[in-house]
Amino acid sequence: MVGDFDQNAARGPLDGLIVVDLTRVLAGPYCTLILYDLGARIIKIERPEIGDDSRHIGPFIQDKSAYFMSLNRGKESIALDLKDPTDKETFEKILSRADVLVENYRPGTMEKLGLGWDVLHDKFPRLIYAAASGFGHTGPYAEKPAYDMVVQAMGGIMSLTGKPGDGPVRVGSSIGDLAAGMFTAIGVQSALIHLQKTGEGSKVDVSMLDCQVALLENAIARFYATGTVPGPLGSRHPSITPFQAFRTSDDPIVIAAGNDSLFRRLCETVGASQLTADSKYGSNALRCENVDALEGDLETFLTKRPASEWLPMLEEAGVPCGPINSVDKVLSDPQVLARNMVVYAEDPEVGSLGMAGNPIKHSPYNDGTTRPPAPDLDADRDTVLASLGIEPET
Amino acid sequence: MVGDFDQNAARGPLDGLIVVDLTRVLAGPYCTLILYDLGARIIKIERPEIGDDSRHIGPFIQDKSAYFMSLNRGKESIALDLKDPTDKETFEKILSRADVLVENYRPGTMEKLGLGWDVLHDKFPRLIYAAASGFGHTGPYAEKPAYDMVVQAMGGIMSLTGKPGDGPVRVGSSIGDLAAGMFTAIGVQSALIHLQKTGEGSKVDVSMLDCQVALLENAIARFYATGTVPGPLGSRHPSITPFQAFRTSDDPIVIAAGNDSLFRRLCETVGASQLTADSKYGSNALRCENVDALEGDLETFLTKRPASEWLPMLEEAGVPCGPINSVDKVLSDPQVLARNMVVYAEDPEVGSLGMAGNPIKHSPYNDGTTRPPAPDLDADRDTVLASLGIEPET
Repeated sequence: MVGDFDQNAARGPLDGLIVVDLTRVLAGPYCTLILYDLGARIIKIERPEIGDDSRHIGPFIQDKSAYFMSLNRGKESIALDLKDPTDKETFEKILSRADVLVENYRPGTMEKLGLGWDVLHDKFPRLIYAAASGFGHTGPYAEKPAYDMVVQAMGGIMSLTGKPGDGPVRVGSSIGDLAAGMFTAIGVQSALIHLQKTGEGSKVDVSMLDCQVALLENAIARFYATGTVPGPLGSRHPSITPFQAFRTSDDPIVIAAGNDSLFRRLCETVGASQLTADSKYGSNALRCENVDALEGDLETFLTKRPASEWLPMLEEAGVPCGPINSVDKVLSDPQVLARNMVVYAEDPEVGSLGMAGNPIKHSPYNDGTTRPPAPDLDADRDTVLASLGIEPET
Repeated sequence: MVGDFDQNAARGPLDGLIVVDLTRVLAGPYCTLILYDLGARIIKIERPEIGDDSRHIGPFIQDKSAYFMSLNRGKESIALDLKDPTDKETFEKILSRADVLVENYRPGTMEKLGLGWDVLHDKFPRLIYAAASGFGHTGPYAEKPAYDMVVQAMGGIMSLTGKPGDGPVRVGSSIGDLAAGMFTAIGVQSALIHLQKTGEGSKVDVSMLDCQVALLENAIARFYATGTVPGPLGSRHPSITPFQAFRTSDDPIVIAAGNDSLFRRLCETVGASQLTADSKYGSNALRCENVDALEGDLETFLTKRPASEWLPMLEEAGVPCGPINSVDKVLSDPQVLARNMVVYAEDPEVGSLGMAGNPIKHSPYNDGTTRPPAPDLDADRDTVLASLGIEPET
């Protein structure tokens, strides 16, 4: 890796790593956000004038996209037109000093620019090339366009989400993009380990659709084991009962009583000890069979008190449970705050903006409570070029 | 890392890495499944007689859990009672040969066993210790129990998923566990990079709740930018329109027309060119404001033909779109198959079982179409001990 390693000054284990970031919108920028929080330097190459498309996606604060700001905090920006020979030369000079290139173009785009993996691997044999795309760089759909919505639909998770018979529901965050961003970050790090062993750069090819398949969890096993096509189950778990949302006298809560002992404690706590003796509920398998009856039986008791009374009682009894928090409540939750999961970036125009922190707490490193803001388009041109010893084109 | 590196024989970049796996059920086993697919050797330490709880969670095939089998393919099993002094000694001998320990106990459990991070770091200074837990090892909730259901609820994603006013809906796969598994895998690899730089093992502490916050995506920005608490939106995207499911004359489809040009092509393709001239729909911001009207207007046209006619027409026009696939369709999709995302493990009793493959395609390595099966409880005791040069206790 480029640069000397000074653990005391380092933000994380990827300190010194230079990532050239051609990504736009979400999947790719989420990958490089993770790499940033692990200590890497992210040099974002953006189209002149327009920049990353997400600069133009709301919500906006004072004409700046809060969406863009939260995904690109701490990164540096330089605007380059890769179709312009001079800019392309500058781009390749930057690449020659970098360890990793991440892109999320549609497959074939980099080849058209003369920057495909084969070309770059010849020129920069130690460079890691990571591509996150809708369908991957191989297979019959490789060149099709895709967005989160499309891969959530095609990858099966929408067929498992929502209430039975109630029409299609999307996962409420862009898990199609986010999962690809995470797996690309995993792939980049494994390629770094490969590089350290062999001295050889490699290509990581991650497809958003593949990542959705990797997240189908027990739905695949259920289909192969039973031949039955799994459908949506509302708030229920497919093979553990009771493990779902329940009504109370006010807000719904979730209860996850995953075994016989927890089920007994749940029944005792809500004053429904008789349910433990009911032969319909004698095992997890029986509770799964009789889930509708059990839901009704438990709610008869649970609707007698508000969520705020039940939750501490269930906790006291050791029954896993929780409120269904809206985003405002999540962001003020004592545990979320104690874990530094809301960090702040001070934008020179917008002021301080809260955003998600780093979920990987790594003992040798401080997990800072602030982050540098996202860059304005091309804001770091001079420092990027100077720090890499590249003469600006005139 | 332990072992010589032979790239030709290696399954992946983590070849030679020995991971001691104390994890149970999903979050931890998903992490070590990812590490397995990257080439690591996973030695699963299980409780005698009972083993990993997921051995007892359905669906079952011939009394074997297909759920367990799909999450633990390729791993090795040895049963050890960590409360038994002799077994604990064996465990520590295994640890002394290992690179990484992963556990997903409730915080405090390892300390009670005399196997907390401080103790292990003193004994094995190069060992990486990764913990995935419900709420993390710090903060006021650290010792509370949690399951996927609980962190999906507390972390906000349930508040964003489902139809407005329609009651709580869970993401249809266990994203609370899976996200923690992915972030723990990222953390383990970053700790390996730290080890290679410094010679020092480190602790990675991942909380399922933190990971949910990290996945809230634009919901956090929306809340801070507008002060409005984001709610569920059915199949819609919060800030891009049209980007949602639509009815056709038979099955619903998703359409993701994320900019003006795609919107125009969509309207032209479905025979609704007049909508592009409608001032209500003149920009993405206006389309977001008038999303209900637009949905109705587009469905007037879309309900004239079946999904199987619209999808090729929209594709031809370059409009991102797709079917809402059920799991059986996902598993037979040509792209999913071409990408080797369904792999098979041959269980000696159950026979061949399909399961999700590896979504990280890494150029130097073959992505095998088969995997070794999941181990029976304690099945690998002799080979694990012999391969590590440990004398069996008698």
